[in-house]
Amino acid sequence: MVSTEIIRQAQTRINDIITTTPLLSSDRLNRQLPFDLHIKAECLQRTGSFKFRGACNAVFSLTQPGQPVIAFSSGNHAQAVALAALLSGRKATIIMPEDAPQAKIDGTRAYSAEVVLYDRYSESRDEIGKRLASEQGAELIRPYDDERVIAGQGTAGLEIAAQAKAAGFTPDSFICCCGGGGLMAGSATALNDAFPITHLYTAEPADFDDTARSLASGQRQQNDISARSICDAIVTPTPGEITFPIISSLARAGLSVRDEEALQAMRIGWDYFKLTIEPGGAVALAAALSDAFLVHFNKTETDNNKNSRRQIVVMASGGNCDSDMFMRALSSKSRY
Amino acid sequence: MVSTEIIRQAQTRINDIITTTPLLSSDRLNRQLPFDLHIKAECLQRTGSFKFRGACNAVFSLTQPGQPVIAFSSGNHAQAVALAALLSGRKATIIMPEDAPQAKIDGTRAYSAEVVLYDRYSESRDEIGKRLASEQGAELIRPYDDERVIAGQGTAGLEIAAQAKAAGFTPDSFICCCGGGGLMAGSATALNDAFPITHLYTAEPADFDDTARSLASGQRQQNDISARSICDAIVTPTPGEITFPIISSLARAGLSVRDEEALQAMRIGWDYFKLTIEPGGAVALAAALSDAFLVHFNKTETDNNKNSRRQIVVMASGGNCDSDMFMRALSSKSRY
Repeated sequence: MVSTEIIRQAQTRINDIITTTPLLSSDRLNRQLPFDLHIKAECLQRTGSFKFRGACNAVFSLTQPGQPVIAFSSGNHAQAVALAALLSGRKATIIMPEDAPQAKIDGTRAYSAEVVLYDRYSESRDEIGKRLASEQGAELIRPYDDERVIAGQGTAGLEIAAQAKAAGFTPDSFICCCGGGGLMAGSATALNDAFPITHLYTAEPADFDDTARSLASGQRQQNDISARSICDAIVTPTPGEITFPIISSLARAGLSVRDEEALQAMRIGWDYFKLTIEPGGAVALAAALSDAFLVHFNKTETDNNKNSRRQIVVMASGGNCDSDMFMRALSSKSRY
Repeated sequence: MVSTEIIRQAQTRINDIITTTPLLSSDRLNRQLPFDLHIKAECLQRTGSFKFRGACNAVFSLTQPGQPVIAFSSGNHAQAVALAALLSGRKATIIMPEDAPQAKIDGTRAYSAEVVLYDRYSESRDEIGKRLASEQGAELIRPYDDERVIAGQGTAGLEIAAQAKAAGFTPDSFICCCGGGGLMAGSATALNDAFPITHLYTAEPADFDDTARSLASGQRQQNDISARSICDAIVTPTPGEITFPIISSLARAGLSVRDEEALQAMRIGWDYFKLTIEPGGAVALAAALSDAFLVHFNKTETDNNKNSRRQIVVMASGGNCDSDMFMRALSSKSRY
C-alpha cells in the first residue's frame, strides 16, 4: 500500500536528484477565469516529464549493484528510466512503440539506453519486457503498476501541498493527467493527506476515458482498441491494477477532453505560462478550461479559501513534443 | 549605490509577490556540451519577464497612497509596471513604441494600464514620460536607470546564488541579456558578492552591442540609429547612466550574437528546457552556445568546481513572444 509516509521516504531518496518544479499561475489568464489556476510544471522535470520521479525512486531503491533495468513506455517513462539508470551506473533497455514521437525515441537513446521498438497495436509490451528481463537478469521497472514508481510520482503531490501552503491557499480542486494512473495515484494520496477537502479529478483524452468510465462504474473498463489520440503519453488500454483502487478511493470523477482542446491548452500553456506542454500533458489544463468542468465546478465546489477566489491546481505532466505538433498547437485558436 | 544589502531589502519587500523562478539544466543538452549549462528561467516570472522584480520593488517602495505611476517600455517593463500598479491599487499609464510586439501591448492593457503609443525612431520616450508624469502628479518608473529597479532585478542574482549553493556548485561564468543593463547591474552585484570568482558577461544582439563596445572602450557607446533586431526587449540606444558604471566595474566583457543565433537558442530553450523564451531573452543562451564563447571559455576560464565539469549560468530574461516569431524559431536548425 502506498501511504504518504512511503511517499515521504521516496522524497528523501530522490530529492537531490529531481527538480523541484514550480507551481505557476498567470495573472493575465486568471483575470479571464472565475477561479485562480495553478499549473504544476512537471514539463520542467529532468527528462521533460514527471516520470523521472518514479523511475528514480524505483532505480535508486535497487539493492543489487550494477543490475540492469528494463522498461516499456510510449516515451516519457522510457527517458526517465534511461536517465535514472545512467545516473546510477546501470545498463537500461527500453521497449518503445514504433509510433512513439521521434523526439522521445531520440531522447531515450541520448541517455545511453538501448531501444527496442514494437507495434503497440499487435504486440504485448508486457511479454517482451518479461522475456528480456529474464534473459538479462534485469529488473523490470513498470510505468505505473509498481509501488516504488507510484510513491516516486507522489512526490509531485507532496511538492504541490507544500507550495500551496507556502502561498497560503487550499486547493478547491486538483486535476491530474491520467494514463495508467501512477501520477494520479501517488499525487492524490499525498494531496488528500494534506488537504482532505480538495476535490480530486483525473483528466484523459475523450477516446481514452477508461479511468472516467471505471470511476463511474466502479470496475476497470477498457478503451476501444481502434481509438487514436495525439495524446501519446496517456493512451493506455485500461487503468492499472494497483493504481485504480487507489484512484477509485480518492477521486470524485474523471474528466475528458477532445484532442482539439488539448491543442488549445498547449497554446495557452505556451502563451500564458511560457511552457512547452505535450498533448497528453495538457489534458488537465484543457479539462480545467472546458465547459464541462466549469458547469460541474459551479454546481459542486465549495469555497475553502475565505474571502477569496477558488483555487484550482492542474498538473502539466510533460513537455516532450515534436515541433510539428507544437506548431499545430500554436496555430490553434482558443477563447483565451 | 546599489549594494547587495539594498538588494536583500528589495527581496524582503517583494519576495511574497514575485515567483522564485527555477534554475534549470538539461541532461540531454549537457551531454553535448563541454560544460554544464544552467538557465535562470525568468520567462516564468509573473508578467513573463524579470522586469516584474524591479517594477514591484519601485512601486511597493512608493510612500504616497494611490499616487499614479508612469513607465515607458518596449513591452516587458510595461507589463511589469502595469501589474505592480494594479496589485498596489494605483493607476498606470504606459508609453510604448508603436512597433512593440502586439502580445506585449495586449498584455499591458490586460493589466488595466492605459497605453500611449509613440514612434521609437523619431520621438523621445523620456520627454513624453516627463510631460505625462508632470500632468498627472505621477511617479515615473524608469526601466533601468533607477536604483529601486536595479535592486529589484538584483533579486534574480540573489536567487541564482542561493540555488547554485543549494545545488553545490560555483558558477564559472554568468551571462546575462543586456539592454539598458538593469538586470545585469543588479544580478552582477549580488553574484559578485556571493561568488567573487565567477566571470560575469553581458550578451546583446550584434547590431546593439553598445555595452560590449562600452566595456571595451571604458566609455558609453551608442548604437547606430538605423540598426534593427528581432530582439525587441533589449534594443536600447546606449548603456544606462546608472547601470553602466556598475556593469563596467564587475563584467569581464560583452558578448554578442546574431538574430539567427537568438532564434536557434529559442528553439533549444523550447526543446531541451521546455521554455518559451523571447528573442531578446535568448541572447545569453545563444552567447553560451556560440563559437566565440566556446573559444573564449577554453582560453580564459578557471575551474572552480574540483573534479567536475565547468558550470555556466545564463539568464533567460523573458518569454513574451508572438506566435509567428516563435514558429520561426521552431523552424530554425541548430547543431544541438
